[in-house]
Amino acid sequence: MANQLNVTVWNEFRHEKQNEAVRKVYPDGLHMAIGGSFDDRFNVSYATLDEPEHGLTEEKLANTDVLLWWGHSAHGDVQDEIVERVCRRVLEGMGLVVLHSGHFSKVFKKLMGTTCDLKWREAGEKERIWVVSPGHPIAEGIGEYFEIEHEEMYGEHFDIPEPDHLVFASWFQGGELFRSGCCFHRGQGKIFYFRPGHETYPTYYQEEVRRVISNAARWAAPTKREKPVYGNAQPLEPITNEG
Amino acid sequence: MANQLNVTVWNEFRHEKQNEAVRKVYPDGLHMAIGGSFDDRFNVSYATLDEPEHGLTEEKLANTDVLLWWGHSAHGDVQDEIVERVCRRVLEGMGLVVLHSGHFSKVFKKLMGTTCDLKWREAGEKERIWVVSPGHPIAEGIGEYFEIEHEEMYGEHFDIPEPDHLVFASWFQGGELFRSGCCFHRGQGKIFYFRPGHETYPTYYQEEVRRVISNAARWAAPTKREKPVYGNAQPLEPITNEG
Amino acid sequence: MANQLNVTVWNEFRHEKQNEAVRKVYPDGLHMAIGGSFDDRFNVSYATLDEPEHGLTEEKLANTDVLLWWGHSAHGDVQDEIVERVCRRVLEGMGLVVLHSGHFSKVFKKLMGTTCDLKWREAGEKERIWVVSPGHPIAEGIGEYFEIEHEEMYGEHFDIPEPDHLVFASWFQGGELFRSGCCFHRGQGKIFYFRPGHETYPTYYQEEVRRVISNAARWAAPTKREKPVYGNAQPLEPITNEG
Amino acid sequence: MANQLNVTVWNEFRHEKQNEAVRKVYPDGLHMAIGGSFDDRFNVSYATLDEPEHGLTEEKLANTDVLLWWGHSAHGDVQDEIVERVCRRVLEGMGLVVLHSGHFSKVFKKLMGTTCDLKWREAGEKERIWVVSPGHPIAEGIGEYFEIEHEEMYGEHFDIPEPDHLVFASWFQGGELFRSGCCFHRGQGKIFYFRPGHETYPTYYQEEVRRVISNAARWAAPTKREKPVYGNAQPLEPITNEG
Repeated sequence: MANQLNVTVWNEFRHEKQNEAVRKVYPDGLHMAIGGSFDDRFNVSYATLDEPEHGLTEEKLANTDVLLWWGHSAHGDVQDEIVERVCRRVLEGMGLVVLHSGHFSKVFKKLMGTTCDLKWREAGEKERIWVVSPGHPIAEGIGEYFEIEHEEMYGEHFDIPEPDHLVFASWFQGGELFRSGCCFHRGQGKIFYFRPGHETYPTYYQEEVRRVISNAARWAAPTKREKPVYGNAQPLEPITNEG
Repeated sequence: MANQLNVTVWNEFRHEKQNEAVRKVYPDGLHMAIGGSFDDRFNVSYATLDEPEHGLTEEKLANTDVLLWWGHSAHGDVQDEIVERVCRRVLEGMGLVVLHSGHFSKVFKKLMGTTCDLKWREAGEKERIWVVSPGHPIAEGIGEYFEIEHEEMYGEHFDIPEPDHLVFASWFQGGELFRSGCCFHRGQGKIFYFRPGHETYPTYYQEEVRRVISNAARWAAPTKREKPVYGNAQPLEPITNEG
Repeated sequence: MANQLNVTVWNEFRHEKQNEAVRKVYPDGLHMAIGGSFDDRFNVSYATLDEPEHGLTEEKLANTDVLLWWGHSAHGDVQDEIVERVCRRVLEGMGLVVLHSGHFSKVFKKLMGTTCDLKWREAGEKERIWVVSPGHPIAEGIGEYFEIEHEEMYGEHFDIPEPDHLVFASWFQGGELFRSGCCFHRGQGKIFYFRPGHETYPTYYQEEVRRVISNAARWAAPTKREKPVYGNAQPLEPITNEG
Repeated sequence: MANQLNVTVWNEFRHEKQNEAVRKVYPDGLHMAIGGSFDDRFNVSYATLDEPEHGLTEEKLANTDVLLWWGHSAHGDVQDEIVERVCRRVLEGMGLVVLHSGHFSKVFKKLMGTTCDLKWREAGEKERIWVVSPGHPIAEGIGEYFEIEHEEMYGEHFDIPEPDHLVFASWFQGGELFRSGCCFHRGQGKIFYFRPGHETYPTYYQEEVRRVISNAARWAAPTKREKPVYGNAQPLEPITNEG
């Protein structure tokens, strides 16, 4: 189908193999549930940690418009060379949607330049996600808030650069809040961080979560234009006072 | 003197030893000229690349409120361990003022997460620096613009994250422009990038440039407060729906 | 045609009637040339100052997705009631693209909350518009810069709130620069200010200018979602400590 | 005392006269409690609605570095002429700290350009204010969060422009959250909105609230420099292609 956006969903895919509770919720892996966010405006493919080159070959990335990233227990197993490759592609224009515990991935930390640390608690408490930027396209079709009945808590301070735009913020029953939908421009690429998605809860089957992920992929789509030119430049106007 | 701000001026200090033209302009090194920006509200010290640990020991950094950074030809000689140390201190609250070709330093690139690339030309052309944020404290005492008679050109696209605040922008005679005074918050630290200062021009003796550097150091001073707590957190409110 | 975006080009349309030089460049009015920016993804209509209600009836605005605004000599003739109506619609989600001397329109000043003042000069000098945000959709299809051979100069300080995103900046031969492509979110609406377009130059026939205007209209398109609810709110969780 | 900052605390001062419950908490008026935030680095004076010109004469404002604003039930009684005068002074550089229900004051709405609407509830529930920008000077001396035992709730969506910097966000027991400490640059002035302070609670006696108010006044202090020049400008460089 013409004009489809090529999205690649990357998943660490370890919890599902090692933990019965996770497998029960996501029998085909978190990536397959995340991939369920996309309708036929998207061409969806998948990549996982234990494939060669983590499934992220140069060719695969060259053909990816937007990459989604879910990782948690094995951030350290992602090879630095692949991290470099992904970051370079983002800076060249590929979109990146980082999900939940991906905040601590090498890719996200490198692109942010900060620790990306935060508070967390696994108590399965209620999360209520509020829209704070009602005109932003990533909020399209989303009510003024939506609830996730059971989720891991993430709390402030979240050690990221101030987002270029804050779309969502989360209220947690246990008393914390969190900037949970954050837009960043980096190089020619666009990055969206979206908080929910602990591996033991069916978060990625929830309609609102899927809508946000789909909206985010469209927002993060590459902008078609010639690449910037860097380095030594000839003058465009006469210079009269060389010194 | 009580309440002085401890600033450390770091300089690569290689051009001055290798190049007669640079030594003529900065006989005691660029760092000494940069240090001339500060009055007695500041306690100024210096550090250079060829000192042990580049002069940036743990103790030295622990006693630095704001670090200034000038480097150009030897970015690659800065040890990664020291880069980590400096970046960690910035994220913990130390201010950082990055000058001119320091845009390509390991420290700045790591904190920005982008290539920090740009256009450049050494033609000694005129630069006119305009204030675009007239209420910002870094613009205090600066007219609506000031000129530097001869400077290296830096042109857009400058591959940095969108600054939290843009204070200055530069017009160049050869036809380019540049975001030349950029504020960033990273972690608990504040970073200011200031464009001018090619080693062959007496830029760091110019009154307006010195005023900006001094203003920037004051703006970047650490905020005194307890550090954020990260990691596993006990609930502050009762959780009634654990799942 | 389904899914077309309804754009309304509003023009003061006075210079063209009063000034032979302007009429020569824009015989059918500036609005018709601006309207030439749009292909069949858009449904274009027009409105001008001297029509009843300035052509901006409640019904017209209700059916407008994105409004473009060109005004200059007759800002004072725009009735306050219509200004209120347009601003209300923007806050409710209608996009707004403000062109050139529209910076001083009542609508733009009211939405910005600042004077929107600037420097200007009518010398027909060269303007070179640089892309400073290469990944932004409004820069799609635009090279790293483009030139307008003859334009009125606008210079900093431009008294606007810091844009949510700066896409373009202009270099002028006479020595000034200007933030010339500025994004703002206001209420549920999105606003883009685009600098070029003095009435005596054929700026709105230039390909790059038209491309930017078309890109901006798409970026500013309304986000489809239920409106926020304001006012007295019932608690969503039990309150245990009423005081 | 030299170098003191001149702050003027403006209070509507009506609730205290009409409502016994409010008078009990603030017998001398809210303004006197707010004024208690300042130590001897500040020179504090007061102004109230029912004074001539609301206590905000041209002379008074000319001698005010930072104005604090508390109003609620009588926003409509503030004369438009005084609103214009205050806004003009802010754009010229006077700092402005808007407190609680001042979000709906004519002054704040005019400077923001949006409705400034929000959700609210008077249930006396708990508010927990989190620091989301730990390096910002307005957070100096503040822990990672502080609690107000009983407060009115304000909830998102808060219809303001995206703040230049978000320093605090509030969690409410009833299930909402709010951007409660927001920085804005407007013209040459700096504006801080701070959420807490309902008239029936002793909020303005609380240590953390006072510290934030004092920090905010220092942050909002005017930047000393010559005013920007607007209007017709002579070229600074030769123009070779007048057209």
